[in-house]
Amino acid sequence: MASGEDDLIARYFKPLARDAGAFDLGDDCAVLTSSADDLVLTTDAIVEGVHFLPDDPPETIARKALRVNLSDLAAKGATPAGFLLTLALRSAEDAWLAPFAKALDADATAFGCPLLGGDTVSTPGPLMISVTAFGRVPAGGMVRRAGARPGDHVVVSGTIGDAALGLDILKGGPAAGAAFGEARVALVQRYREPQPRSALAQAVRDHASAAMDVSDGLAGDLAKLCAVSGVSAAIEAAAIPLSDAARAVLGAGAGRIEQLIACGDDYEILCTVPQARLPAFCADAGRAGVMVTTIGRITEGHAVPQFSDAQRRPIALSALSYSHF
Amino acid sequence: MASGEDDLIARYFKPLARDAGAFDLGDDCAVLTSSADDLVLTTDAIVEGVHFLPDDPPETIARKALRVNLSDLAAKGATPAGFLLTLALRSAEDAWLAPFAKALDADATAFGCPLLGGDTVSTPGPLMISVTAFGRVPAGGMVRRAGARPGDHVVVSGTIGDAALGLDILKGGPAAGAAFGEARVALVQRYREPQPRSALAQAVRDHASAAMDVSDGLAGDLAKLCAVSGVSAAIEAAAIPLSDAARAVLGAGAGRIEQLIACGDDYEILCTVPQARLPAFCADAGRAGVMVTTIGRITEGHAVPQFSDAQRRPIALSALSYSHF
Repeated sequence: MASGEDDLIARYFKPLARDAGAFDLGDDCAVLTSSADDLVLTTDAIVEGVHFLPDDPPETIARKALRVNLSDLAAKGATPAGFLLTLALRSAEDAWLAPFAKALDADATAFGCPLLGGDTVSTPGPLMISVTAFGRVPAGGMVRRAGARPGDHVVVSGTIGDAALGLDILKGGPAAGAAFGEARVALVQRYREPQPRSALAQAVRDHASAAMDVSDGLAGDLAKLCAVSGVSAAIEAAAIPLSDAARAVLGAGAGRIEQLIACGDDYEILCTVPQARLPAFCADAGRAGVMVTTIGRITEGHAVPQFSDAQRRPIALSALSYSHF
Repeated sequence: MASGEDDLIARYFKPLARDAGAFDLGDDCAVLTSSADDLVLTTDAIVEGVHFLPDDPPETIARKALRVNLSDLAAKGATPAGFLLTLALRSAEDAWLAPFAKALDADATAFGCPLLGGDTVSTPGPLMISVTAFGRVPAGGMVRRAGARPGDHVVVSGTIGDAALGLDILKGGPAAGAAFGEARVALVQRYREPQPRSALAQAVRDHASAAMDVSDGLAGDLAKLCAVSGVSAAIEAAAIPLSDAARAVLGAGAGRIEQLIACGDDYEILCTVPQARLPAFCADAGRAGVMVTTIGRITEGHAVPQFSDAQRRPIALSALSYSHF
């Protein structure tokens, strides 16, 4: 009686749908029960050949699809509540679906974000995975992009630019000739498998005046945050946190800081923290096990944020961020 | 400063995002504020060449993308609260995007379901529109597929099979030679532009023991409802409501009832209503302006629902519903 589509869902995804609101994926809709919290909503899709490479392993594609959304929730200070999955597939192959579903399940469990429902469609085109994720914050508590004030510290989590170098390596670009061994593996993994800073969500909610995740390049994303906050920023490029692997590539002349801050896929949190809150924010981040680095200050005005080098000379950026169109 | 993707969103979709929780599409996430209601979630994607035809007008594609989701909410008894839109586009053409956005806006307003956010990605493949829609029901009030009991009436809204005939016409099938003039226009429109029965949501919530929307074919969808409810059903095919246009096509021998109940895209509500509730349900449906028709009864057992003709002979169905895989 069940169709091929129903069989596919029952076989690969029903085992993931353990939340009561998913109704075993056997209903038209899912439910998130009422609570005193606001519900934070985000949706991000990834497309084969655009956001991931055709020969990326199914496990890393699954993780990327979910984690880019978890990164958004974390940046807003939200606690994950669940997600919907839309899969556009050319065919239903066990060799791809089984490891994809298994990796997705592991991530859903690790991040406390259960599968609630979804849709599976056939496409003659590239594989596409669209996730809509839900998070909860106390009423009115979502951390906005708007809210940064002059004097606030500009803070980023983790390190910047690794994913851009990882993609460059996979495409055989200059970084491919400068990163070897563990460094190469680490950079490629940063491209394929973002690390959402869910552990930092509470600290962001408690202390940040504004926040977003860095997905289209630090320079462009900071410009967006500043524009909607009605402020500018002064950033010291030398303070931008880089991994040892990224430093090695830059040291070999196979990449420049200007490129790293204009490329995407970092999935780190960019936030602004008032001076008085910075010690508590850093302490909470430390307890959460997430490295955070102050890279500059919010300034008055409406100019595009200024990046300067160690000699305080402005750095010219030809592009601020990645755009699909 | 803004990228092409940001420009596209600002130009075409920001004007639609009038709900406060959309933050003018200028943040990473949207918000649905806390309430005493449960939140009902659904997501359905439509793909060019699969769910709509490459030369379908952008207006009808917009309506279909949103309405297939509104249909799910209505069948669950939910009141629309908003939606997220994911667009996978080959290119950003004003001639397509402008009418698409305008029609989407009109529907969002008409159905009280504001745009809250979304994602726009480029694809080398077919156009794909994925909508995630949210509705509200009183806590615990979502009408499930499970819940049908022996003796309940099986009821459908509107008419069945029009969309299947409309698609047949567009593909130059037998119906194309049997439907002319207004009938032809009406059938094609039913394929291109589902009519979500949002007006019936309250009556479904108040009276139905189980409900779902008919999207993959009446026979198959009823079988799903019965399976999850642990019951069977006896349906009189002659009672299935058909439009005048559909009757004309069947009368001309260019289609059979067996096909109409095994094809999809009806987007009518299929529900079961206890005997004692039927008068009130029908009265409420009348006040809502939605035609409802009793087509049979729920029976005991686990057999696939039985469809019989006017002489009470069983109708054999070769396929129950449409499947993508």
